[in-house]
Amino acid sequence: MNINELISKMTIKEKAALCIGASAWCTASVRRLGIPQIVMTDGPHGVRRVENIDEVQNIFSLTKSLPSTCFPTASAVACTWDTELLQRMGEAIGQECISRGIDILLGPGNNMKRTPLCGRNFEYFSEDPYLSGDLAAAFIKGVQSKGVGAALKHFVANNQEHKRHTISAEIDERTLREIYLTAFETAVKEAKPWAVMCAYNKVNGTYCSENNELLTKILREEWGFKGFVLSDWGAVYDRVESLKAGVDLEMPGPQKKSFKKLIKAIRNEEIEEEILDKAVENIIKAVIKSKKAEKKDTEFDQGFHHELARKMASESIVLLKNNNDILPLKEPKTIAIIGRAAKEPHIQGGGSSQVNPTNMDIPYDEIEKLAEQAEIFYEEGYTMDEKVDNNMIDRARNIAQGADIALLFIALPPYKEFESYDRDDMELTKHQIKLINEVASVQPKTVVILNNGSPVSMEDWIDNAAGLLQTWFMGQGGGKALADILFGKVNPSGKLTETFPMRLKDNPTYINYPGENDRVIYGEGIFMGYRYYDKKEIDVQFPFGYGLSYTSFEYSNLNVSSDEFKDIDGLTVEVDVKNTGKLPGKEIVQLYLRDIESRLVRPVKELKGFKKVELKPDETKTISFVLNMRDFAYYHPTYKDWITENGEFEIMIGKSSRDICLTKKVNLVSTTNLPCTLNYTSTVREWLDDEEGRKIIESLSEDIMSRKDFQRVSGSSNIDLWKAAKDTQLIFLLKQMSWAIPIVPDIIMSKLLAKVHNKRI
Amino acid sequence: MNINELISKMTIKEKAALCIGASAWCTASVRRLGIPQIVMTDGPHGVRRVENIDEVQNIFSLTKSLPSTCFPTASAVACTWDTELLQRMGEAIGQECISRGIDILLGPGNNMKRTPLCGRNFEYFSEDPYLSGDLAAAFIKGVQSKGVGAALKHFVANNQEHKRHTISAEIDERTLREIYLTAFETAVKEAKPWAVMCAYNKVNGTYCSENNELLTKILREEWGFKGFVLSDWGAVYDRVESLKAGVDLEMPGPQKKSFKKLIKAIRNEEIEEEILDKAVENIIKAVIKSKKAEKKDTEFDQGFHHELARKMASESIVLLKNNNDILPLKEPKTIAIIGRAAKEPHIQGGGSSQVNPTNMDIPYDEIEKLAEQAEIFYEEGYTMDEKVDNNMIDRARNIAQGADIALLFIALPPYKEFESYDRDDMELTKHQIKLINEVASVQPKTVVILNNGSPVSMEDWIDNAAGLLQTWFMGQGGGKALADILFGKVNPSGKLTETFPMRLKDNPTYINYPGENDRVIYGEGIFMGYRYYDKKEIDVQFPFGYGLSYTSFEYSNLNVSSDEFKDIDGLTVEVDVKNTGKLPGKEIVQLYLRDIESRLVRPVKELKGFKKVELKPDETKTISFVLNMRDFAYYHPTYKDWITENGEFEIMIGKSSRDICLTKKVNLVSTTNLPCTLNYTSTVREWLDDEEGRKIIESLSEDIMSRKDFQRVSGSSNIDLWKAAKDTQLIFLLKQMSWAIPIVPDIIMSKLLAKVHNKRI
Repeated sequence: MNINELISKMTIKEKAALCIGASAWCTASVRRLGIPQIVMTDGPHGVRRVENIDEVQNIFSLTKSLPSTCFPTASAVACTWDTELLQRMGEAIGQECISRGIDILLGPGNNMKRTPLCGRNFEYFSEDPYLSGDLAAAFIKGVQSKGVGAALKHFVANNQEHKRHTISAEIDERTLREIYLTAFETAVKEAKPWAVMCAYNKVNGTYCSENNELLTKILREEWGFKGFVLSDWGAVYDRVESLKAGVDLEMPGPQKKSFKKLIKAIRNEEIEEEILDKAVENIIKAVIKSKKAEKKDTEFDQGFHHELARKMASESIVLLKNNNDILPLKEPKTIAIIGRAAKEPHIQGGGSSQVNPTNMDIPYDEIEKLAEQAEIFYEEGYTMDEKVDNNMIDRARNIAQGADIALLFIALPPYKEFESYDRDDMELTKHQIKLINEVASVQPKTVVILNNGSPVSMEDWIDNAAGLLQTWFMGQGGGKALADILFGKVNPSGKLTETFPMRLKDNPTYINYPGENDRVIYGEGIFMGYRYYDKKEIDVQFPFGYGLSYTSFEYSNLNVSSDEFKDIDGLTVEVDVKNTGKLPGKEIVQLYLRDIESRLVRPVKELKGFKKVELKPDETKTISFVLNMRDFAYYHPTYKDWITENGEFEIMIGKSSRDICLTKKVNLVSTTNLPCTLNYTSTVREWLDDEEGRKIIESLSEDIMSRKDFQRVSGSSNIDLWKAAKDTQLIFLLKQMSWAIPIVPDIIMSKLLAKVHNKRI
Repeated sequence: MNINELISKMTIKEKAALCIGASAWCTASVRRLGIPQIVMTDGPHGVRRVENIDEVQNIFSLTKSLPSTCFPTASAVACTWDTELLQRMGEAIGQECISRGIDILLGPGNNMKRTPLCGRNFEYFSEDPYLSGDLAAAFIKGVQSKGVGAALKHFVANNQEHKRHTISAEIDERTLREIYLTAFETAVKEAKPWAVMCAYNKVNGTYCSENNELLTKILREEWGFKGFVLSDWGAVYDRVESLKAGVDLEMPGPQKKSFKKLIKAIRNEEIEEEILDKAVENIIKAVIKSKKAEKKDTEFDQGFHHELARKMASESIVLLKNNNDILPLKEPKTIAIIGRAAKEPHIQGGGSSQVNPTNMDIPYDEIEKLAEQAEIFYEEGYTMDEKVDNNMIDRARNIAQGADIALLFIALPPYKEFESYDRDDMELTKHQIKLINEVASVQPKTVVILNNGSPVSMEDWIDNAAGLLQTWFMGQGGGKALADILFGKVNPSGKLTETFPMRLKDNPTYINYPGENDRVIYGEGIFMGYRYYDKKEIDVQFPFGYGLSYTSFEYSNLNVSSDEFKDIDGLTVEVDVKNTGKLPGKEIVQLYLRDIESRLVRPVKELKGFKKVELKPDETKTISFVLNMRDFAYYHPTYKDWITENGEFEIMIGKSSRDICLTKKVNLVSTTNLPCTLNYTSTVREWLDDEEGRKIIESLSEDIMSRKDFQRVSGSSNIDLWKAAKDTQLIFLLKQMSWAIPIVPDIIMSKLLAKVHNKRI
């Protein structure tokens, strides 16, 4: 029986029921027609499968979830910049889904880190849409390769938890396209997720769940999305409006009110039954896909996945500071380990993504194993309270003073990093800041190990730390991964996927966050993340793309396939990378593009390529990047399209966004054929920006300048009209001249417009 | 004959004709009914009366204007912070209008200095709406006291020249109210201008000239404006729409198309004749007012006005830097005067405001007069070209090296400060920067005298200048004024009315200017000018309110009428100011307010009072400020009103916005009685912010916490729900608890809402 036949046999009630969850995690089944349910569960970084998942009717059920591998969270794994690893992690999670009877995993999260305060940033990849899109796509490919669906979320602009159910993200069209939609676009086009989850919030006044422009016009019609759209849990505010907009499935269920309203709307012809049928079709396709998929190896290998979790963690950790090569450790005789996170690591953030791990590496234990010959002293260092406890600090300082080195594990109180609300600030607790400074004051060899899902302010203490590791929420294998890096078993290779600002005040959203009156204005526009700090030339604590290694790398021989190229042909860029240090290591090579001149303002640089490469000492590899038309394009709201312009681009190869090693200029020849937008009110600059317009203006200018009486005119206002008046309307200039020169401005203007639009006069 | 009778006798054509200019500067007359024309002319800082003004049909007429006093432009006179002086200047200009047969003066300009690049900033007062409003009101009162009308302009948000005819200023409601409308509101309410001129640009997508909300609802109905609205010259794009919106008079004329369209629309009943009648009435009232006014002294005293122009200039000049008290000059034997602006001062900016001065003080000549015993060497220093000419620089350096002191007059090429387009940057020419640095390298006693209408970047040279004076466009009396200050005949007292940023990049508009696709997004919101630099804690070159004196002042005894006060009662603040130096001088005392805690985000500080006081050495005066309810209020878009909130305010008394000398906290008791806005989706924080809501939540919280099973719930998610969940929806929390505690969230919620809204359940 094909889908259309199946749908034709369904009653309106059956169809409506299928479009609204039957329980907390499942869709309705239609036994009469042999349509089984779909089972979904939370979890970008692991499977949060509750017991009795078929029956649970309340998402806040306290039933413990079944054990599954807790991988590092997205903000960590993003720092691997390794799509292959992300794909492997996806595969492993897909495998665990199979063993837990899950059809669709609710992830990955692909929202942008607009503010470091967003309570759910630990679940997101980056402040950069190019990177985030690629990582999300890789993860989805991995999950779906196992016959399990991924639900890409939260579509779109759920970039803060604050008032997520009522706030409207006010974003201009170009910014929405270039920053907030791009990561989703990449993931949808490249990985074809089975589902997309719409977000709680509004965009420009309309709930995402009621936003036809987003869910249907852009997602389906423009990007070619073929899966089904489901709501975030509780993101449907009106089932009829949401169905019209393109939400195929409301979750969670049951929702008696929605059901009744929907039936009534169909019966009253407020909504066409075809729209309901389309939603049903989208859901049934996923049911069929899930049931048809060959699902191998129903049990997963816990040990193997734990190893993968360790691997992910070890590549996620970012070495931020390493004065005098304090790391790796040089066989210390005594080690002071300070901080409760050494024994109780925060392996994940709070909220719906919390996984019940199958196993757990404890940093303290793993360090102990690798430091057999060293004596270890331990102090808890701090509580989860924010009050300063000088006794604890004194004890910590005492053990630090006597040791060869101090390892200081700092984790924020867990309620500071939690879904459903944001942080108030970027600060460690006052106690923790004092602890770091006091320990460092007696122990110059102090290494701070940050165990948080998001950046913290460092101004008050960073100068006192000799070493600094950002370990994020490392997942269940993080303890071993960290120990390996401390002792040089693994050479750190992670790089930041978000800017660590000097102060929260420097962040572009500081004056436009969290919004008020249920609106948050994205006033910074496209200048989000490093695009802002670059544009405003603001010093940052650590830039986007930054991370140290125990070895060193040199870049050379930047070559391009052509100095001049057509946009549709794209460009290949090659560069040599050499390991110039003494240890094997991995380098993340980054390619940024800069449009030297463009009609709309563009960022100083934008990431358009990255490659992770493993190199032995003295080894050199040639890295190659393929740039396509889109990489050079920007979204033009007038043309409602991504366009390129003729002209120079600068290719920048860097170790980070602020450590550009090699640059090269290339010349793009645009094949975009845009309709002329010159009109009666266009300025001289706009005429000059138009290829045909420029020719016309130049000849007009010559014509007018050659008139004897022109000198009198231009002298009269004490300026060279044609030179200084670029931002003046052409008609205004013509009128200004008409007093002295025998011209009729309106007639000249209509002739010019006819000419530039290629019309006969 | 009363106005209504008069109007009833007019034909539709006569009425339409009256609502459209008859010529470049005049309205139509209706001889049949004895309605004379109104004659208008440009000019905030002087009367630009062209010859044959009754006949001129083209605003670009090259006819020279008749001589009148050229006062310093608005950006200069604002720095006097002296409303009395502004009023005197208004009176003088009003007097000159009479002598030139002008009924209405097109000024003052009251737009906000959002970006330092705006080409017309020299015509505007400030980046602060409080200050700008007071200065504009004073000027209007002065003009109108003579029986001449003032046309307050450009209403509203014409804060850039770039694309002024097509661009839409996208401004959120609160920002529009608090920043961009406030200066107009103050001027309209306090000074009752005869006319308001609507701006060229759009606001939020609608042309100002077609914006009923602005021109009728806010201006007339809310603020009580009784005059007539005229268009900026060419700002009407559709005469019918503009009439509907509230533009009484389209200028300039003649406009045959508009006339025909309007007649047709009336005949077709596209627009009611009553609307036309209302416009006619508004215009005729002005005609009557002008004709009835007693206009004394038809000739003006040129000498007296020139003296006033000098006075205005001397109080406008701001002493920015005075290392080792280099100024006033200490009887130098030789003076090197460098810079063509010493002989050809730029007394005003370019565009419609240009006045043909009656007289002109030349700085060089005035210095020569006061330095009888000194030998003066002069070099031109630079041309108006931007190219570096090393020969000129060498010659300048040579005379500087041999002299006791160098006075370096720097003026930008005049085409950089011109109506109708903006500057590209804030830089002096490369040549000028080199000139300053070369001169200063051989002459440590170098005083730079800036002769520009807007701030320039100083980073590249300021450290090398021992003295620095911002003289603005000083008007025709500036030469003498400057010489008086240099030689200590006058003690400088001007203070900046706009922030001088370190770099253009630091300006809040840097990422949102000049806009693209005909939209400029005011993404910085209310954080414009010093509100931005304060909020983001950015170092500036010179802060808002800054200016030095040859003497020194001390503040003491900050007293308030009451530590706790009702908003409607207002508050009186007193402070003692003492001249602690050796010279008599004037100090501008500034009062800023800070709302310590508020529901909507508020600026770190806002100017709410200023007083200029003259003090002899050792003299002390007590300054008094009266603060009213509006001074403490902010505009709340939900309530569509200015509201106050209970709580603490900090009163700050300062010498500048960044030199706060005294502070005091007071407690405001709000009489605002606002309807409760709590609803089903409100967050815990919102409940707590509501007085009644807080009580309800506190008792609910006690109730729930006392339940035995609560511990199990709060423990389950590893957080203290009630502590950390401030930004969570209350209903979400209730649902989360409902799993473990026997509560029905929706029922509890409806009870709570009923209670807080004082409804029975």
